[in-house]
Amino acid sequence: MATSTVLTASETHAMKRAPVVEGVLPAIHERWSARSFDGREVSSSVLTKVFEAARWAASSNNEQPWRWVVGRRGDGTWEKIYETLVGFNKTWAHRAPVLMVGAAAMRFSKNGAENRFALYDLGAASSYLTLEAAALGLTTHQMGGFNQEAVRQALGIPAEYAVGAVIALGYQGEPAVLGDVTMIERETTARTRKPLGEIVFSEWGMPADL
Amino acid sequence: MATSTVLTASETHAMKRAPVVEGVLPAIHERWSARSFDGREVSSSVLTKVFEAARWAASSNNEQPWRWVVGRRGDGTWEKIYETLVGFNKTWAHRAPVLMVGAAAMRFSKNGAENRFALYDLGAASSYLTLEAAALGLTTHQMGGFNQEAVRQALGIPAEYAVGAVIALGYQGEPAVLGDVTMIERETTARTRKPLGEIVFSEWGMPADL
Repeated sequence: MATSTVLTASETHAMKRAPVVEGVLPAIHERWSARSFDGREVSSSVLTKVFEAARWAASSNNEQPWRWVVGRRGDGTWEKIYETLVGFNKTWAHRAPVLMVGAAAMRFSKNGAENRFALYDLGAASSYLTLEAAALGLTTHQMGGFNQEAVRQALGIPAEYAVGAVIALGYQGEPAVLGDVTMIERETTARTRKPLGEIVFSEWGMPADL
Repeated sequence: MATSTVLTASETHAMKRAPVVEGVLPAIHERWSARSFDGREVSSSVLTKVFEAARWAASSNNEQPWRWVVGRRGDGTWEKIYETLVGFNKTWAHRAPVLMVGAAAMRFSKNGAENRFALYDLGAASSYLTLEAAALGLTTHQMGGFNQEAVRQALGIPAEYAVGAVIALGYQGEPAVLGDVTMIERETTARTRKPLGEIVFSEWGMPADL
């Protein structure tokens, strides 16, 4: 892919889409993690649907350990989350109209026992959130590149919650907004995944005969 | 819900479905965690689609830390996983034609650094797996109720992988197959989730104005 080519948002989206497999939910193949957001704001009605999808995820003992603190550009929460991002993420995430951080209750509310599935379940709900966003024409980008302790302090996330990922959400824009050639190249490179034989086993390390 | 009423599989499914919200992916609201499996086997072609969905989940640095060891009824892996389940789960999971266990690589392959998103990402991919299963007319039930060390030993899961959940997968049957009145009642009780105000904040503990 020549980086000098200026791809439109929809050309980029078409390139990032995973190969279609008949019978697999289209949103699964259409979701990808863009960094090029355009200027459009996200309506409350759309944002509500995204969280509606998230809350119906499964969780251990139906604990629903997931919480999200959501900032919208122009408000203090957005600013606080943005400030905790590492430098590279700051170079693009400032265009995202929504920045949120996920957190997971580490103990079961009913008895205080440790919930070893807290982050697992937060990951599950957050992935429904990102999938629903894709289905609504939004894009999301989850990040680990931020200062966890800083975000915990800035937002007052209690010690009994683990901090998950920061998620940028908005509408995908043209890669050109990223400015930097290396970033544009990254944004317009086809996605890759391990083949099933490397991740689905019949016995450990032996590809399942699917 | 009178427990003496014998509900069919489709009546049960209709009751367990979450309230439809326009614009939210139907599979999100249709997915639920049944324990009443019928006798049907799951074809390899269907099982492949389920994992195809899972592998396109997002992960930190695209590490794809997820692995699944998949047993099909009649094979040694199924038997080994089943044997590690706690007693309650044994009472129903013996009807599931597929039992698998998820595992997550705890370090990044490129540099050996700890991946604090390993379980988070396994949860994400597993939730795409369960959603795709729902879209294909299957049902899944994730379990934490099993002996982790026993399953690690029985399947030879290396120490550098964290064990996630056991997932039962198959076609939903009539609740009556569960036999026990309490279990049937549980199987036919409407699902509940926290309202958005308890999980989506603008500042910690303050419901977001969505």
